[in-house]
Amino acid sequence: MRTNTPAAAIEPDLQLARALFEQLRRDSDELHGVAHGITRDTYGAGEQRAHQLMAQTAHRLGLEVTTDAALNLYLTLPGRKREAPAVMTGSHLDSVPRGGNYDGAAGVVAGLAVLAGWIAAGAQPQCDVTVMGVRAEESAWFPVSYIGSKSAFGLLPAEALEILRLDTRRSLREHLAECGGRPAGIAAGEAHLAPARIACFLELHIEQGPVLVEAGEQVGVVTGICGSLRYRHARVLGDYAHSGATPRSHRRDAVAALAEVIARLQQDWAAMERAGQELTLTFGQVYTDAQQADISKVAGLASFGVDIRSRSTASLQEMERHLLAAVAAAEEKHGVRFELGERTGSQPAQMDAVLQDELQAAAQDMRLTHRRLPSGAGHDAALFANQGIPTAMLFVRNGNGSHNPDEAMELDDFAAGVRALAQVMAGRARLAPRH
Amino acid sequence: MRTNTPAAAIEPDLQLARALFEQLRRDSDELHGVAHGITRDTYGAGEQRAHQLMAQTAHRLGLEVTTDAALNLYLTLPGRKREAPAVMTGSHLDSVPRGGNYDGAAGVVAGLAVLAGWIAAGAQPQCDVTVMGVRAEESAWFPVSYIGSKSAFGLLPAEALEILRLDTRRSLREHLAECGGRPAGIAAGEAHLAPARIACFLELHIEQGPVLVEAGEQVGVVTGICGSLRYRHARVLGDYAHSGATPRSHRRDAVAALAEVIARLQQDWAAMERAGQELTLTFGQVYTDAQQADISKVAGLASFGVDIRSRSTASLQEMERHLLAAVAAAEEKHGVRFELGERTGSQPAQMDAVLQDELQAAAQDMRLTHRRLPSGAGHDAALFANQGIPTAMLFVRNGNGSHNPDEAMELDDFAAGVRALAQVMAGRARLAPRH
Repeated sequence: MRTNTPAAAIEPDLQLARALFEQLRRDSDELHGVAHGITRDTYGAGEQRAHQLMAQTAHRLGLEVTTDAALNLYLTLPGRKREAPAVMTGSHLDSVPRGGNYDGAAGVVAGLAVLAGWIAAGAQPQCDVTVMGVRAEESAWFPVSYIGSKSAFGLLPAEALEILRLDTRRSLREHLAECGGRPAGIAAGEAHLAPARIACFLELHIEQGPVLVEAGEQVGVVTGICGSLRYRHARVLGDYAHSGATPRSHRRDAVAALAEVIARLQQDWAAMERAGQELTLTFGQVYTDAQQADISKVAGLASFGVDIRSRSTASLQEMERHLLAAVAAAEEKHGVRFELGERTGSQPAQMDAVLQDELQAAAQDMRLTHRRLPSGAGHDAALFANQGIPTAMLFVRNGNGSHNPDEAMELDDFAAGVRALAQVMAGRARLAPRH
Repeated sequence: MRTNTPAAAIEPDLQLARALFEQLRRDSDELHGVAHGITRDTYGAGEQRAHQLMAQTAHRLGLEVTTDAALNLYLTLPGRKREAPAVMTGSHLDSVPRGGNYDGAAGVVAGLAVLAGWIAAGAQPQCDVTVMGVRAEESAWFPVSYIGSKSAFGLLPAEALEILRLDTRRSLREHLAECGGRPAGIAAGEAHLAPARIACFLELHIEQGPVLVEAGEQVGVVTGICGSLRYRHARVLGDYAHSGATPRSHRRDAVAALAEVIARLQQDWAAMERAGQELTLTFGQVYTDAQQADISKVAGLASFGVDIRSRSTASLQEMERHLLAAVAAAEEKHGVRFELGERTGSQPAQMDAVLQDELQAAAQDMRLTHRRLPSGAGHDAALFANQGIPTAMLFVRNGNGSHNPDEAMELDDFAAGVRALAQVMAGRARLAPRH
């Protein structure tokens, strides 16, 4: 029927996409109730259901379905030359607790919609085209970045298996084994993916910030992905003391010291931005001790978490130097002691310039409103890029941010993004119409 | 035996004092266990036991024992002229949760030790001498200042009866009635004490700050008692947003705004001190929302409490103006909204100059090391002073502050303080030896 359509313009199966989003929502509602958004917990019932749904759909479409030791899902439309490096697309299927339906899942649904369209049109790629359903991207569950994609390349450190899920206090090893995965394969560094066997990786994702909505643009071509530098469990230790009876000179006030560090770093951040650097700095959690703190006591303890993000490793390091300098000054001035605790983080990544141009050209061909923009959030695409694989991301406009139940992606914007993605995938896979 | 001792030098009964402290500790241990310090809960089992102990002791000594509607305890050694204004001493018998044994109770024990010494020596005062066991001084239970002493003068607002105890969530009315008190008397403004009937009020108390310990001095003559100005339940409302995807210009960061307010007020405080003002400023509780805050989210909410104390009403007001200015600046800069909530507080009070001199003279006579110092903490003595009653306080050296199980008053220092107190009381009551 559609054999005369140019391969790059084959319409993705958007009915399938809509049905998958609806089923994903029903699955979460069934497991967790409807009141508080979407929960697809990493290596738990929520993520499992989403992987089952995608695997079943792929079986129905006739795709090859495989998994690796970490239970990442690979849904492959075989190419004419199976030995040629594969074109890959995909994203993660887990969500934060009480998050939204699109963060992550949109990228997997997009890939299946593209392949379903090609199959319906009888088109075949020259190389394998694989949609990957990545595991464990949201570090709200296990506090480690990119567990799934690292495992796919054999890069997850074995000790990460012992990390506890923050809600269940059970280890990644236990959760993974319970889902049917193979911790031993991860510990042995088994690599399911090899960079040399991957032609490119493309990830479609909702934008998690307000830029596209405020600019009135449908899609964004991502220029680079921020790395992060975090101290999740930092503390300031001072002395509890009577608020009225302890003069200023005798205090070791944990709250005053921390406030000065936070306030000073706001200034450092603004100065770095004025100097042309791009980064974010967030103290998302700050708290005195619920048992010991009181309105009439100088605080002897304050706990906090700090998250620094940038596309530039140099900017991350510069902000960390500012943090350490502010901490040293506050220790000196207030007689307190900071314990920053373990530093975690992820590497920044640059997106492939040629792929960016191809995505932009596709957006222009389709008369989509668009812009280039960085990704402040981390994505598995960063891990692919840092393996030397040409990698790109396409953001779809989305209201109200992500990681909350109010994510608001319009399906029309999603469709526009999927069409642009399909055009680039078709070109890279040298998609040929049915003979 | 001791009829030749000058009346002012009659030795207080320090064995009784030691026995009372030990019994107070056993009572708390029995009710609440030994692991976490002393708990004498306001209008609860802990405070009740302490009042029973003091009443029984007074009965054994032959003192008159009465209570008022609020169950304040009055232990009176009758004077020759019962119509003459009474000399009063005393303090409160409740403690904070997991506090120490001396904060409050030391002042009641001191008064009983003085009267027991006089009785043993057969001495009699010209006027009544009353030891008062004040109720409900620690606002850690019911968040109202001076419930007991206000009630004694008929000054507690009736609506205070409906305030809930923070731990039990039951009203002051219920707790008081359960202990045998008369809420109706409080509501009607019944006054057990009349300022014109009181010659003076003297309160011995442990120092709650580090000044005497660090100076190596045994006792302190208090110059004045700080009033307070508090916002117990203040909040900053911003917007939750993705930490990486939300640029600085798009944030409404509750933590950054609050940190800048706290940091700026530290500077205002230092400047006020340089200008010769005495005050304290404490942000003892600061916390993001335990459910919603996350390392990877800009904080949309931060809660805090602020406590300002000074002997000067003008200083309290000036610091509040600084607070409001800092809040307005942070609202403007960060696009957040502050809700300071209800303002509570208490009036500052000056101690009587003549009584201060008498206490200092007594300390000098006994070769005690001493100094004058303000009280940063509030005390019932402030309420007496503000009724126009000549009032003074004597601090006893105490390590590790108060409101914690590590209070460390030496009984030798206590004895020194009680002797100085006894000398001033004897003078004021024109104590006469037995004929």
